[in-house]
Amino acid sequence: MNIPSYFIHRASCRNFDSTRRISEQTLNAIIEAAAHAPNTGNMQLYSVVATTESTGKAALAALHFNQPASTGADVLLTVCADTRRFARWCRARKTVSGMDNFGGRLSAFIDASIFAQQIVSIAEMEGIGTCYLGTAIYNADKISKLLNLPEGVIPVVGIAMGYPAAAGAASDRLPLSAILHREHYADADIDTAYAEKEALPESAGFIAENRLETLAQVYAQVRYPEETNIALGKEMLALMQK
Amino acid sequence: MNIPSYFIHRASCRNFDSTRRISEQTLNAIIEAAAHAPNTGNMQLYSVVATTESTGKAALAALHFNQPASTGADVLLTVCADTRRFARWCRARKTVSGMDNFGGRLSAFIDASIFAQQIVSIAEMEGIGTCYLGTAIYNADKISKLLNLPEGVIPVVGIAMGYPAAAGAASDRLPLSAILHREHYADADIDTAYAEKEALPESAGFIAENRLETLAQVYAQVRYPEETNIALGKEMLALMQK
Repeated sequence: MNIPSYFIHRASCRNFDSTRRISEQTLNAIIEAAAHAPNTGNMQLYSVVATTESTGKAALAALHFNQPASTGADVLLTVCADTRRFARWCRARKTVSGMDNFGGRLSAFIDASIFAQQIVSIAEMEGIGTCYLGTAIYNADKISKLLNLPEGVIPVVGIAMGYPAAAGAASDRLPLSAILHREHYADADIDTAYAEKEALPESAGFIAENRLETLAQVYAQVRYPEETNIALGKEMLALMQK
Repeated sequence: MNIPSYFIHRASCRNFDSTRRISEQTLNAIIEAAAHAPNTGNMQLYSVVATTESTGKAALAALHFNQPASTGADVLLTVCADTRRFARWCRARKTVSGMDNFGGRLSAFIDASIFAQQIVSIAEMEGIGTCYLGTAIYNADKISKLLNLPEGVIPVVGIAMGYPAAAGAASDRLPLSAILHREHYADADIDTAYAEKEALPESAGFIAENRLETLAQVYAQVRYPEETNIALGKEMLALMQK
């Protein structure tokens, strides 16, 4: 067993070299190769919008809350669940798509996520740094307006790309025993699962700077509060059911 | 630009060598490496259940409609969106998870899909064949019962794995111009986008054997009918909102 070290040491890049551009040829080659990713029934229910011009990038970065990966990137990709292209094909060929409903669009979300990860793997193997912008689903309505996404085309993830100015650092992961279940699901022991994460030196820093008691509180109360998820869920569900 | 040929020639495997087993060590190494995949805020909102015993595999394959990839596989993986582990951590650490709602579970769906694709890439680079079983979301309730998935743990995709008896054939893909949009989304020309797919020799066969007029009708009326997607969407939405 000889897993390429790329997979194990994989790290997001948030610090891009502003003097180097990704050529159109390189970007095309990455997207074209990534489109060989497996997908639901070979319907390819996804699309990607590449934002490379500075005005568009600034507007899009703002919708990603101007996080550093988004403002410094050479290219911003918005990977979308897309049931529209397939539906247009159906209409042009004497039938009606069965994918324009929540179930069909959920399949499109899975396809788009798999396609996105293939873009990331291929780009990174070529020496390009990437960082997912999970915030694509936080501002999906506004991103849709900015990129002229029509009905049936829904942002899933953003990907910031560029040649790295500095390598990112790989972050911690839960132990295998917390993730892999044999034959049946069984709850992992929480103290064991989170021991390493809680013992990281930076964890104490996060707790102190937020004047909280536990690392879980930093996640649940500061980084990913319920009200944000409820709001984005409402907006996404409306887009997926439209 | 030198994209590894694996990505371009990637093909699903549906024909496994029944004499070769994936060792526990190999499976563990694949899952452990795949868990380095990027994910939302490093919450790792996913889990995977490995079904390797013959009785369990037969029962699970039946819920995947006994498609050949599922019945012949050495290992069946069920990759799940999992907001439960994180919620248990929060409860054990004096707080409440904000991810147990539709928005949080949609993030978990994206995380699980990205993780699944990393499993597939790593396994295939090691010479193991894989095939996604998109049917995991068709029978999510029954699969959940079979695998003892508790609330907050939802099947996203199945992956059939094994050493290949025969290499799979790579399938066609839409041209880059149908998938990649520059700066703004613009509808692709449908005739151009689907010309190659419609011209494949097997397309005429699918149309003839179903006594239909167009390939799109095969997709929309036979393979992915609306009623199936509406039914699975209803079930998935209930699971995601529970």
